[in-house]
Amino acid sequence: MIEAKPHGLTTDEGETVLQRYRRVRRATEELAEPLSPEDQLLQSMADASPVKWHLAHTSWFFETFVLAGLPGERPPRADYALVFNSYYDGVGPRIARDRRGLLSRPSLDEVRGFRREIDDRMAAWLDGDRIPADRAALVELGLNHEEQHQELILTDVKHGLHANPLAPVYRPEPAAADRSSAPAPALSWSSFDEHIAWIGASGTGFSFDNEQPRHRVLVPAFQIASRLVTAGEYLAFIADGGYRRPELWLSDGWAAARAADWRAPLYWDDAGGAWQVYTLRGARAVDPAEPVCHLSQYEADAFARWAGARLPTEFEWEVASAHRGADGALAESGALHPQPASSEVGPGPVQMFGDAWEWTQSAYVGYPGFHPAAGAVGEYNGKFMSGQLVLRGGSCATPRRHLRASYRNFFPPSARWQFSGVRLARDPR
Amino acid sequence: MIEAKPHGLTTDEGETVLQRYRRVRRATEELAEPLSPEDQLLQSMADASPVKWHLAHTSWFFETFVLAGLPGERPPRADYALVFNSYYDGVGPRIARDRRGLLSRPSLDEVRGFRREIDDRMAAWLDGDRIPADRAALVELGLNHEEQHQELILTDVKHGLHANPLAPVYRPEPAAADRSSAPAPALSWSSFDEHIAWIGASGTGFSFDNEQPRHRVLVPAFQIASRLVTAGEYLAFIADGGYRRPELWLSDGWAAARAADWRAPLYWDDAGGAWQVYTLRGARAVDPAEPVCHLSQYEADAFARWAGARLPTEFEWEVASAHRGADGALAESGALHPQPASSEVGPGPVQMFGDAWEWTQSAYVGYPGFHPAAGAVGEYNGKFMSGQLVLRGGSCATPRRHLRASYRNFFPPSARWQFSGVRLARDPR
Amino acid sequence: MIEAKPHGLTTDEGETVLQRYRRVRRATEELAEPLSPEDQLLQSMADASPVKWHLAHTSWFFETFVLAGLPGERPPRADYALVFNSYYDGVGPRIARDRRGLLSRPSLDEVRGFRREIDDRMAAWLDGDRIPADRAALVELGLNHEEQHQELILTDVKHGLHANPLAPVYRPEPAAADRSSAPAPALSWSSFDEHIAWIGASGTGFSFDNEQPRHRVLVPAFQIASRLVTAGEYLAFIADGGYRRPELWLSDGWAAARAADWRAPLYWDDAGGAWQVYTLRGARAVDPAEPVCHLSQYEADAFARWAGARLPTEFEWEVASAHRGADGALAESGALHPQPASSEVGPGPVQMFGDAWEWTQSAYVGYPGFHPAAGAVGEYNGKFMSGQLVLRGGSCATPRRHLRASYRNFFPPSARWQFSGVRLARDPR
Amino acid sequence: MIEAKPHGLTTDEGETVLQRYRRVRRATEELAEPLSPEDQLLQSMADASPVKWHLAHTSWFFETFVLAGLPGERPPRADYALVFNSYYDGVGPRIARDRRGLLSRPSLDEVRGFRREIDDRMAAWLDGDRIPADRAALVELGLNHEEQHQELILTDVKHGLHANPLAPVYRPEPAAADRSSAPAPALSWSSFDEHIAWIGASGTGFSFDNEQPRHRVLVPAFQIASRLVTAGEYLAFIADGGYRRPELWLSDGWAAARAADWRAPLYWDDAGGAWQVYTLRGARAVDPAEPVCHLSQYEADAFARWAGARLPTEFEWEVASAHRGADGALAESGALHPQPASSEVGPGPVQMFGDAWEWTQSAYVGYPGFHPAAGAVGEYNGKFMSGQLVLRGGSCATPRRHLRASYRNFFPPSARWQFSGVRLARDPR
Repeated sequence: MIEAKPHGLTTDEGETVLQRYRRVRRATEELAEPLSPEDQLLQSMADASPVKWHLAHTSWFFETFVLAGLPGERPPRADYALVFNSYYDGVGPRIARDRRGLLSRPSLDEVRGFRREIDDRMAAWLDGDRIPADRAALVELGLNHEEQHQELILTDVKHGLHANPLAPVYRPEPAAADRSSAPAPALSWSSFDEHIAWIGASGTGFSFDNEQPRHRVLVPAFQIASRLVTAGEYLAFIADGGYRRPELWLSDGWAAARAADWRAPLYWDDAGGAWQVYTLRGARAVDPAEPVCHLSQYEADAFARWAGARLPTEFEWEVASAHRGADGALAESGALHPQPASSEVGPGPVQMFGDAWEWTQSAYVGYPGFHPAAGAVGEYNGKFMSGQLVLRGGSCATPRRHLRASYRNFFPPSARWQFSGVRLARDPR
Repeated sequence: MIEAKPHGLTTDEGETVLQRYRRVRRATEELAEPLSPEDQLLQSMADASPVKWHLAHTSWFFETFVLAGLPGERPPRADYALVFNSYYDGVGPRIARDRRGLLSRPSLDEVRGFRREIDDRMAAWLDGDRIPADRAALVELGLNHEEQHQELILTDVKHGLHANPLAPVYRPEPAAADRSSAPAPALSWSSFDEHIAWIGASGTGFSFDNEQPRHRVLVPAFQIASRLVTAGEYLAFIADGGYRRPELWLSDGWAAARAADWRAPLYWDDAGGAWQVYTLRGARAVDPAEPVCHLSQYEADAFARWAGARLPTEFEWEVASAHRGADGALAESGALHPQPASSEVGPGPVQMFGDAWEWTQSAYVGYPGFHPAAGAVGEYNGKFMSGQLVLRGGSCATPRRHLRASYRNFFPPSARWQFSGVRLARDPR
Repeated sequence: MIEAKPHGLTTDEGETVLQRYRRVRRATEELAEPLSPEDQLLQSMADASPVKWHLAHTSWFFETFVLAGLPGERPPRADYALVFNSYYDGVGPRIARDRRGLLSRPSLDEVRGFRREIDDRMAAWLDGDRIPADRAALVELGLNHEEQHQELILTDVKHGLHANPLAPVYRPEPAAADRSSAPAPALSWSSFDEHIAWIGASGTGFSFDNEQPRHRVLVPAFQIASRLVTAGEYLAFIADGGYRRPELWLSDGWAAARAADWRAPLYWDDAGGAWQVYTLRGARAVDPAEPVCHLSQYEADAFARWAGARLPTEFEWEVASAHRGADGALAESGALHPQPASSEVGPGPVQMFGDAWEWTQSAYVGYPGFHPAAGAVGEYNGKFMSGQLVLRGGSCATPRRHLRASYRNFFPPSARWQFSGVRLARDPR
Repeated sequence: MIEAKPHGLTTDEGETVLQRYRRVRRATEELAEPLSPEDQLLQSMADASPVKWHLAHTSWFFETFVLAGLPGERPPRADYALVFNSYYDGVGPRIARDRRGLLSRPSLDEVRGFRREIDDRMAAWLDGDRIPADRAALVELGLNHEEQHQELILTDVKHGLHANPLAPVYRPEPAAADRSSAPAPALSWSSFDEHIAWIGASGTGFSFDNEQPRHRVLVPAFQIASRLVTAGEYLAFIADGGYRRPELWLSDGWAAARAADWRAPLYWDDAGGAWQVYTLRGARAVDPAEPVCHLSQYEADAFARWAGARLPTEFEWEVASAHRGADGALAESGALHPQPASSEVGPGPVQMFGDAWEWTQSAYVGYPGFHPAAGAVGEYNGKFMSGQLVLRGGSCATPRRHLRASYRNFFPPSARWQFSGVRLARDPR
């Protein structure tokens, strides 16, 4: 089910599996570097986890799903399953999800030691060159899993630091930072005719089980927007009473907005009379040209209705993304926030990969013929196929290598702490 | 958007609109007949409404969406919008949904008077024969709306009476009732090849906006079961630890089952050591041959997984239902409970219409090109297209005329108080 | 523990026990007369019960605690314990308190029949004249219990009718009603020196176990106000920011006020720009001279602090009430709402009995040497001696016979649906 | 209101205020020493605070209530009021109480620096010898406040570490620890006749405002137990169905016990078939001779009822404590857990001070004539006089100097995380 040979928007050619393993693991640790042990314990809501927990859980994953079956292998800390298992019922009981912030022990130093121990064992084994295909696939799964947690580290610590009234900063803005005031390029539409499309992973590199099987879908004619919706456009929605007009909202969305008193995207604040946005580099004025993000799907949907458009289906998005490059900001850019679209790109939609995940109207369900893998690892994706919506594309917190056109991210429609934005679609005129 | 000429599984040929109006309205009132004014005030949870409220709300609907625009028309009780508007934000404020059980006033007699007043006005107008097409469509919408509330009257009062420790009965079992012990017919499968199917309302009779536009869908090859899952089959699932094995459940479903301590379908009780089921005719032993019902979609999904199958998509269901008749128990049967499948029917699936609604795996979303109607009536369906799943078919509480192959019922996956059951599907072998 | 010979503010001299029984029971039924069967099913919150439930529960009480031990006695409806037992764990399981509004069955007619059946049995037995003292005490307990439920019938149905946006009326204002605009008499203070007082029931008539044992208490010097706080005085508190100034409030009170967004007493509404009050006779303008009521103890305490005073202790109140008559409005007055104090009374505090219950600062705990009765009837009072505050005096909904100086009413500090008001006290100047 | 000259169970004679200040502050820091920065961020429930927060808050208290009014004084970190103000509305807005665990910043190092800065300022000022009496009283208040937080540091970190499935240890048991198996001394009773007692602070040393004014109370005759209830006695209560018998419980207590599924004191666990207790030194077998602690008042009350006794009033306790020494384990003992009573002490109750706080049946309210201090410091005690019960005595986590016979501790009846135990009282036989 899981392909052994990795691929993504960039290739890893010339790299051994061990080199790749080391590079991905190091990238995780670099994300934790600006953070104190205390910062790395923050858990500001049940959906978010402490950074330290991410560091440990990803290591536990390699131990449990890759190393555990090797001859002579015994887990260095069997009791860690109690605290670093995320949700695998097949593996056993565990700490409640909303209690991870209480894990002052093991200490960050101990967690780092645990990571090193797992890395040493992985290295000794990957160096041996006699890796069977099924285990190689699990290594690749573990690396993609780790990349997902790299993104979560950034979104979770952003949420945690923002909960502090002192509003601490993750990384300060570089001294030379200079925010231009260029407006966003005008919005245009790309049109697609009705046709039968192949949807799902191509089979030439790694993909998750939820991207499979590749199958045929009849996609009706549609149009899709040339770029993400901007903060400026969203400000117009707010100014036009967007958060006060029930006719613009889905019933559940209106209830959620009223219950939590939403008046703007998460991290926006107009306390001082002008809209500020809290970013991983601190608070600053909202730039009208930058993509709006940290929206729930309910808000994305209401905005689209207000704009006379709609959210795309995930199939439309996948069709439209064919042959598009990764021109948006990804994790490697160090931007840590979505960037305005360039006005210099040619025809066809831009920002398809990067900047902000794009909410679709598609429920997250299995493709025809979908079957999860056998064993506990089969809990990875399948059991979440209820109550969630698909997001496509990738964000400024996603590693470049992690993405591909068939990639399906998914969150409940009320979730706002991810870098989630909007691309409009509409029926042909 | 709404077709003026009604159709369903049976035709109404030879009937005038007024005759049809009177027949549908009378059917509603007959459902209330066994119930005291106190019974008709019961509201046992926010999802259910008092019978009296259903009687009044359906009348308010005709006043508000049909009569209100007529020359000289003034609502007989303008203040009733405060208490009998269900969810139309475009019409104004209203009592909270979970407070409808506090409407001791207007009294049942006053509500009946209100119904009569609306009926008189409707009759005077429908008798006039100069009804424009758009208003005729709204009459038809009002009648279909009323039929939906007929079903809700039965499901809501069942839930309300069951909340009483004295377990009162809606209608006693007829004296001659004789429950046979014939086993259910063996399960078999019908196979369908991949093809492009037309999905949605045909346009030759009434349909709701959510069945439109009719459009083409590529439906992969599939198999569908010959009848509904039986109580006996479900007992085997329970006996095999179905409610104790997380690997059988979606993550949200497992959480819901644990939170509410589900151990059997709603209305089942094994307090005495043998499974009893509470029905509108009182409690009695579970009949292994009858369809299991009052399941959440989570339970339906877990059962299907346990059985090595899956739930159908709504498209598969619609394809399979073509040319199938209404051989299941419908409201007109007076059965008030799903009935065992007959063992004498020929090839092809039975019980497609009636007995119990059939959970699908399809999220309730708009069809390509869907647009709700203008004005408050546009809130009828569209704003609920989030977080709900489609059910197909119909139940023992649905009027025969109300159903058709394209009909889309929808409820959240946790809902259990409807007559909701399971038909299995699977990928081709 | 419970005295057989009844007393109160009026004597029942010349009445046989049977005559008294009939009079009290009839008074309960008269309270229900203006209400339809539907009205009598209303339950607008867990603390309130349907009127029909009160009718049945009080009858069940006589059956369970008086008749049940008689030779040959069998309860007419043994299953009613499931639905009409209030909180006696010693008697067995029962419907959840907040589900009593779901008891459409037994019908009101059946409940009336049940009352008649109990009344017939009681009459047959009370007529026999061979009543042992312990059972006579239980009859008296049952009658006092019934009188408590008479008050609850009024407060509960008021809450239930008020929940209806149509704001129905319990009893219309008499045609001749003419609200005078006389101002309330000026507030003065009565002074008491430190002394040792006897507190608790005198033993010459009926009293509840929580008024016993009579015991000595050292009561420091204090002053007490001549009348209840008026609506006009409370309006000044509101106008002075009373609901916006945390320094006036107890910590729990401030939290409760913020959580429920209290801005005025329960049943007050300034939607139209002028304060209206909802009463059992409908909504009308607030009369500045009438006592403020439907306050929580938190509000009473905050008002007292704002006024430079404090709430009395229950001992101070009992001392001050000696030799005061029942000059306030009681149930027999038919006023159904607290009335302005008369300006014509002589020295000494007025309104000590009637109009509105008076919050004290005293926690509801047992007196020294308190022991509840043996058996389930011992659950009557004792188990509630935690988390509640004592109120003294009586209200416009209390029967005259029910009250005495030692009477202890009790509710949680957040409760507002009783006729609860404020009398100020202060330390000597 | 607050006396300038400190006293307690031990005298501080010969110490300057500065020496005392330094000693108390140092003691706080020693409590934090075994804990990592991550441990010091733990907040396992809203009632508990992180150790780091305690370190900072107590310093903020000196800055705000002592230093702030001095000429030229400016707070070193004005923004710390946002995060280290506990509940003083008069000082301004602040972080929600249940979010203190999200304060990864300021770091522990920064908080230590803040403490040093405050200490330097206090030292410079206290060294000057021209301290006016009102400020000296505030210094003493600040030191007593700090001692209260010393106890909270231990109870809060115990709760936080216990939330970790790995059950880390605060301080390991000393190598030589040897738990004897001596049984507890037999229980006996001391008798007191009815008399008028002086209750409240004597005025010869520091006391909190809630111990004042000293006043006369008539205390009826009573008997009080010679020692705390032991774990062995509590085990008998459990074995006798104590947690399953509603007749033993107050109504609110039974509801709380059922809602949280209490089956034993907090920190007790019988998972392995034998009762274990989690202590600050790790988990070990329950010693039947040691005092039971970590009980709610509801459990203490139920136990007393089961034992045919009752909880003492706070006045009884204060009368009984006269002339009793501090023979129980206090913070200075390093025991970190209540210790068995010695069998060698003479007549009169032992363990009155130390080992475990003793729940009383007395509501926490102001004494006659009580007035809080002017300004924000007046919020210290008074606004909590609602819904809480008084505990008397002191515990193994209380500094010896902090206690006196008139000391009133207070918590809601449901609180279990303090070192709260039971001493029985009863009416004379």
